[in-house]
Amino acid sequence: MPVGTLATVKGILPQQLKDVGVQQVLANTYHLALRPGADIVEEMGGLHQFMNWDGPILTDSGGFQVFSLAKMRKLDEKQVVFRSHIDGSVFELSPEKAVRIQEQLGADCIMCLDECPPHDVSPDEMQRAVDLTTRWATRCRDAQQRSDQALFGIVQGGTHQKMRERSAEGLVPLDLPGYAVGGLSVGEDPADMYTTLDFTTPLLPADRPRYLMGVGRPQDLLESVVRGIDLFDCVMPTRNGRNAQAFTSAGPVRLRNQKHQRDPGPLDPECGCLTCTSYSRAYLRHLFIAGEMLGPILLSLHNIAFYQQLLRNLREAIQLNKAAEFKAVQLARWGISN
Amino acid sequence: MPVGTLATVKGILPQQLKDVGVQQVLANTYHLALRPGADIVEEMGGLHQFMNWDGPILTDSGGFQVFSLAKMRKLDEKQVVFRSHIDGSVFELSPEKAVRIQEQLGADCIMCLDECPPHDVSPDEMQRAVDLTTRWATRCRDAQQRSDQALFGIVQGGTHQKMRERSAEGLVPLDLPGYAVGGLSVGEDPADMYTTLDFTTPLLPADRPRYLMGVGRPQDLLESVVRGIDLFDCVMPTRNGRNAQAFTSAGPVRLRNQKHQRDPGPLDPECGCLTCTSYSRAYLRHLFIAGEMLGPILLSLHNIAFYQQLLRNLREAIQLNKAAEFKAVQLARWGISN
Repeated sequence: MPVGTLATVKGILPQQLKDVGVQQVLANTYHLALRPGADIVEEMGGLHQFMNWDGPILTDSGGFQVFSLAKMRKLDEKQVVFRSHIDGSVFELSPEKAVRIQEQLGADCIMCLDECPPHDVSPDEMQRAVDLTTRWATRCRDAQQRSDQALFGIVQGGTHQKMRERSAEGLVPLDLPGYAVGGLSVGEDPADMYTTLDFTTPLLPADRPRYLMGVGRPQDLLESVVRGIDLFDCVMPTRNGRNAQAFTSAGPVRLRNQKHQRDPGPLDPECGCLTCTSYSRAYLRHLFIAGEMLGPILLSLHNIAFYQQLLRNLREAIQLNKAAEFKAVQLARWGISN
Repeated sequence: MPVGTLATVKGILPQQLKDVGVQQVLANTYHLALRPGADIVEEMGGLHQFMNWDGPILTDSGGFQVFSLAKMRKLDEKQVVFRSHIDGSVFELSPEKAVRIQEQLGADCIMCLDECPPHDVSPDEMQRAVDLTTRWATRCRDAQQRSDQALFGIVQGGTHQKMRERSAEGLVPLDLPGYAVGGLSVGEDPADMYTTLDFTTPLLPADRPRYLMGVGRPQDLLESVVRGIDLFDCVMPTRNGRNAQAFTSAGPVRLRNQKHQRDPGPLDPECGCLTCTSYSRAYLRHLFIAGEMLGPILLSLHNIAFYQQLLRNLREAIQLNKAAEFKAVQLARWGISN
């Protein structure tokens, strides 16, 4: 899922997302609740109409941003109170309120409010967060008024196998339509993330989507899918694209590099996106050097297309029972040891 | 013509320009000569291929920017020497070099190098500039190597009838395929611009395009077309669009205004562009308040569509011999006295 934090995937039109095969987009509850406000989005007909995207949308619960962005926060059993990172105004977020806001926004998939502690907290602190997340998930499920939204639970527990087991044991009995693995890609070593997935995804129902939140690099997607993950969101395709960094079938490319100055070739000759079929590397470099908006637009578009194509190819490989082989070939092309 | 200074109409894809009826775009010789350099554009197959625009392109001569942007300049009969506004490096621009660069860029319409003095210089100084512009136009024509580019002459002379006559008398005998009116919209009163057009356009061949450079507001287009102008370029649709200012059939709209916060209606109910058919004013305002790129994109797109539609309607009115009536109705709707 490309990330459309504020009800827009930065610089990209909905039709352009469809053209490159995007199926679902993510929007951020925390950001939208602050600006323009959930009541306004609801009044305007909900997120789909507001942002002119008629495909599926997933909203996060806002919890992650409260724990990473908000200026002050006070957490207790009932709720978390925090100050907006924009204007310092005070907000309260409880499991019931997180569900209420997400019902106002009207996404197809919504997330339970969780506590996402830093990955290196003490075992006691991690256990407390895991148990609170479980109790809050029950409250989220009980707070649902709409029957047309799939509520996902979020497994926490850092990189500790016992904690992940404890979290899954609390959440799976809730029989939710989807489960996410939270608390990864928050500063731990990628190898630790993969190991954590090795023992976490088998804890979650295989007949429900398993969603790895906030991940990741192309190699992370490959490593996670072979470990059972179905769904991702990440700002990398768009954020890196805005910064002149492209993902290509031959590995990353930095478009500001002088060597592209007179390169008439496409960014990625294996890619069929608008950027790669219509423009030279020389032109793309020129746009970034000149500070032109079209540079971020064209590179975001390509990077999203690249991620979608990578996962389409991987799905095909899975159907042919060749996922491991596909992963090995890709990593080798990108110069990454398997 | 939307302005694509650096071989891109800011934030807008070529296909999007076509979709709203754009026929020709303008690119800036001065800017492109500095960045990425005319040799690189030529090496990449020329402007059309470089920017992926297969419709007509017009390049200005660079003269206007040398006289308005460059940091230092030294003008003599032969050429103008100036320092780049980007890095201070020294450039020389002569009539021959202006043509040579424009041949490298490869636009369909190219402009003679002219001297565009401030509108309030002394009559002596204005006459000197007019006469130099005439001599330079001859040199431009003689310097042409390519036969597939239409070279336009530029009439100068500020708001002085005698000077405009002197300029036209020098240029019209060159029998150029098009003529531009330069030196307007440079700080003079709009009424003075209209008066100047009243006596200037009749001096230029009616069977050749007459191009008013750097103009203008919607009302300026109406006032100029009824005075015989066929062609315009202006940054207003895109620059104002990036600043949340829209042109609409009911007059200008500022999208940042609080009153649009909960407005589910379209920006302009009479407009058929993507922005007006797909998004609410509330969403557009949200994009600008949140600093999202899609705001400038959608508003630039609408403003370009609005200009194209206005001129399509005006062309129809001309064919029905109702241009003056059309102009009066439009101005009345925008609250402008006729």
